[in-house]
Amino acid sequence: MAKTLNPLGWGYVEDALADRERAAVLKVAGGWMGGRVQERRAPPAPEAVRLPASRIAIPDALRDCVDGAHAARLLHARGRSFRDLAELRGGELRQAPDAVATPRSRQELERVLAWAGERDYAVIPYGGGSSVVGGVNPEGVGDARGVITLSLRGLDRVLDVDTRSRTVHAEAGILGPDLDAALKPYGLAVRHFPQSYFHSTLGGWVATRGAGHFSTGLAKIEDRVQALGVTLPDGRRVETRRLPASSIGPDPNRLWCGSEGFLGVITDVHLRGVALPTSRVSCGIRFKTFEQALEGARAIVQAGIQPTQLRILDPVEHLLSRAFAGRAATGALMVLAFESAGAPVEPLFAAAQELARAQGGEVLKQDGEEAVGDWRNTFFRQPYIRDALLDHAIVSDTFETAVPWSAVPGFYHAVRDAALRAVQEVCGVGMVSCRSTHSYTDGLCLYFAFFGPGRHGALVDQWWQLKAAASEAVARHGGTLSHHHAMGRDHKRWAQAELPEAFRAAIRAAKRELDPQGLLNPGLWYE
Amino acid sequence: MAKTLNPLGWGYVEDALADRERAAVLKVAGGWMGGRVQERRAPPAPEAVRLPASRIAIPDALRDCVDGAHAARLLHARGRSFRDLAELRGGELRQAPDAVATPRSRQELERVLAWAGERDYAVIPYGGGSSVVGGVNPEGVGDARGVITLSLRGLDRVLDVDTRSRTVHAEAGILGPDLDAALKPYGLAVRHFPQSYFHSTLGGWVATRGAGHFSTGLAKIEDRVQALGVTLPDGRRVETRRLPASSIGPDPNRLWCGSEGFLGVITDVHLRGVALPTSRVSCGIRFKTFEQALEGARAIVQAGIQPTQLRILDPVEHLLSRAFAGRAATGALMVLAFESAGAPVEPLFAAAQELARAQGGEVLKQDGEEAVGDWRNTFFRQPYIRDALLDHAIVSDTFETAVPWSAVPGFYHAVRDAALRAVQEVCGVGMVSCRSTHSYTDGLCLYFAFFGPGRHGALVDQWWQLKAAASEAVARHGGTLSHHHAMGRDHKRWAQAELPEAFRAAIRAAKRELDPQGLLNPGLWYE
Repeated sequence: MAKTLNPLGWGYVEDALADRERAAVLKVAGGWMGGRVQERRAPPAPEAVRLPASRIAIPDALRDCVDGAHAARLLHARGRSFRDLAELRGGELRQAPDAVATPRSRQELERVLAWAGERDYAVIPYGGGSSVVGGVNPEGVGDARGVITLSLRGLDRVLDVDTRSRTVHAEAGILGPDLDAALKPYGLAVRHFPQSYFHSTLGGWVATRGAGHFSTGLAKIEDRVQALGVTLPDGRRVETRRLPASSIGPDPNRLWCGSEGFLGVITDVHLRGVALPTSRVSCGIRFKTFEQALEGARAIVQAGIQPTQLRILDPVEHLLSRAFAGRAATGALMVLAFESAGAPVEPLFAAAQELARAQGGEVLKQDGEEAVGDWRNTFFRQPYIRDALLDHAIVSDTFETAVPWSAVPGFYHAVRDAALRAVQEVCGVGMVSCRSTHSYTDGLCLYFAFFGPGRHGALVDQWWQLKAAASEAVARHGGTLSHHHAMGRDHKRWAQAELPEAFRAAIRAAKRELDPQGLLNPGLWYE
Repeated sequence: MAKTLNPLGWGYVEDALADRERAAVLKVAGGWMGGRVQERRAPPAPEAVRLPASRIAIPDALRDCVDGAHAARLLHARGRSFRDLAELRGGELRQAPDAVATPRSRQELERVLAWAGERDYAVIPYGGGSSVVGGVNPEGVGDARGVITLSLRGLDRVLDVDTRSRTVHAEAGILGPDLDAALKPYGLAVRHFPQSYFHSTLGGWVATRGAGHFSTGLAKIEDRVQALGVTLPDGRRVETRRLPASSIGPDPNRLWCGSEGFLGVITDVHLRGVALPTSRVSCGIRFKTFEQALEGARAIVQAGIQPTQLRILDPVEHLLSRAFAGRAATGALMVLAFESAGAPVEPLFAAAQELARAQGGEVLKQDGEEAVGDWRNTFFRQPYIRDALLDHAIVSDTFETAVPWSAVPGFYHAVRDAALRAVQEVCGVGMVSCRSTHSYTDGLCLYFAFFGPGRHGALVDQWWQLKAAASEAVARHGGTLSHHHAMGRDHKRWAQAELPEAFRAAIRAAKRELDPQGLLNPGLWYE
């Protein structure tokens, strides 16, 4: 039976924490916060959340695919960042889409866009709605006479599987699990696992330059896009050619990868798949310090070894991941995994372990599987845990970045310390943890998490203070404002400067050409 | 001692074929052409080649870095395609740069660009001059009042080596060997070997989205660009951030990768390097047919194995490569090599051989090293051989493309047959060979070569007939017009359609923003 999307929380209503899990989590979190945790305050009933009156009259011809009802408008009113959820729980939104369009064909999509163009309505392309950067929030849309949120979920078909080329051609609105399910009969898979895997779409991955786990050498989705299709507001089509590589012009695919919906509506993607793995080896490796573990990761990737997963938890993150399972931990943990559909990976696994040992790593025996398992079990649960903490006004969020290897460990310490100072200042007490989720030959992704006891009613302000402190620290020390969450609206103030001014001007010029009325996702960085 | 660039041929004068090598090559080639080979006609003396009078007066302030002499203008008048060389040998060029600027600093570069802007001179950025697609030819430059060829060879310094991140920051005009030499003391290397390695520049590689050999998973240069610096005609600077990955906006690096000099002058690049390999394993694998060999390659890369080199010669290419070494050959040859700086590659090498065997491959023993050696020896010699053949009016050229795996073998047969028909029609007799130079999980690069006996005085026309037939066949059957040579001027007629119309419009808009006067490399596809 289909599950129900939670209009005021992460994911599905049915998957929220059960009472027992909630109690365990709160016991652990509460312990760290020295009794400052506030009383539980349940979110309002969805139908009680007040939205501004819709300014839009839906034409009869579009009633099949445009919904102006409260439920649809609320469900699509925000992404799923901490501040989005805090705003939703506040019981009243100052901005919401005036209607939600869910076209089921390209023809319907064109009709929706033509209607929006005629009426001068802003159009916000929307995939799974799991943005944590304000990417789909109808904020800062200027003088548009209305806002249509354009859900791509009606375009979710697999159009073709090219088994010889190991590519899949699918519509942009397909969810991760549906894409994998369609590939499985062919012995293929996507193996692209963002934390939002169950709630994010192929098109969303591409539009935000997302990243996944368990994808050797292809962590970033833009490296897996063979071709794509885009519909422009005036109905023009862009269809790039299916090519493994080319030198004809700058790569057209790359203009739309990371375009966050403002250069056209990505309708379909030819994605590079992989053989469905038939075996996996993995282990946990403990290091005394995070710095040593990072050196181990650097040694592995720079030796030309590309593990399917190479993830490192700093001591706080390690402690947290195990504590939620009721266990203790010390030191940093490296999670090392290789998947294979036949190619020999045991020698590479052994060589990687050896390189880790040379940096002081201790390959865990019995205990290792448990440590890795604890991490895996919490990975997809974390956003649901966040909801449970939010009931008690606990502020918890993540921010992620990437830097060259030469920037660590200095960058790690500086950013962690800045975030910790901010949490202590805003919440009185709190924690900051860090993990490295992706390693490249020239650098790595660092993924920070922070939490502390907030106050009911003040959560959005508290979050902004923490977001600002974190973002300023990342920018000041040379990290990108996002390795795989995109800029959205939340990062705009700090991340815009990351893009050279002349590049921004060039993209603005491209935007005027592709979307002369400026209908698509106004309020983003290009403005 | 420094070698002398050949103004009318490939590479260095000192490296041209010696008499004995020339005689051997001609004997082989002549045998295939049934006595239709014309008499030897030596190229004219360089100083005797007539150029249009220069329209440019060089200001005193720029005399240090701008050269209006015949020798400089001739050397930079054309790239090094067959038709370029045939035109040069014709003794009179209708287009040549009016002067050649070789700034030795960014400040000098800015002064040159400012001068060009004031006078409305077209500016053609020029790296090593090894373009085989008319990318640096001053043709179709419209109503510019003069043409400056802008050599980047004066900007050839290594600015920094980040050994922890394995990246090198170098100016765009550095040649391949100089870059590797600078990295060697650090135990690093670029391992990017286009056939033009000795005569092409870092900036040229990036501007054309070139590809190299011996670079596992990083064959295309755009995948190795960590960051880059660009100077715009009005002096504005673009400097992208040094990041291993990011999701902030479309990737700015990718706008300039493949931009062929028309969106700004690439002045410097942060390039991802690799550890200098300490060991290599390689073998030759013979297959009865090219099709079987391609299936072997597909099996290897789709198993997740990335050999450092995976190259396949079709029976004709195999025959040719061995014939020039005085040996015979049958069937197709796969050249399989793994390099390592410590990581275990023997198990992967064995697994790749096993996958090849399953497709009918026979791993060669003694004979194998010889076969691989013959190929390697001719690789960098081929363009010099072309010069020797040209003395006898033998038309010889290559064209390369890429397609998804699902397109082969049909694509191979159709394009080869079309090229062969054209050669037979134009030259009476001739040969077409093919090699696969790069394999990806979703497709491959096919690199065709053709030759036949032409006629002195008619070579340019004959070449255009062959180029048109080959390009039409590639386009008709869905290949890219170039996997790694770029579009230049020669591919424009066919390749422009490869880029979606709206993308071309967006790039034109970006061009107007970055180069409002339209100074940079006019005549390319964006117009």
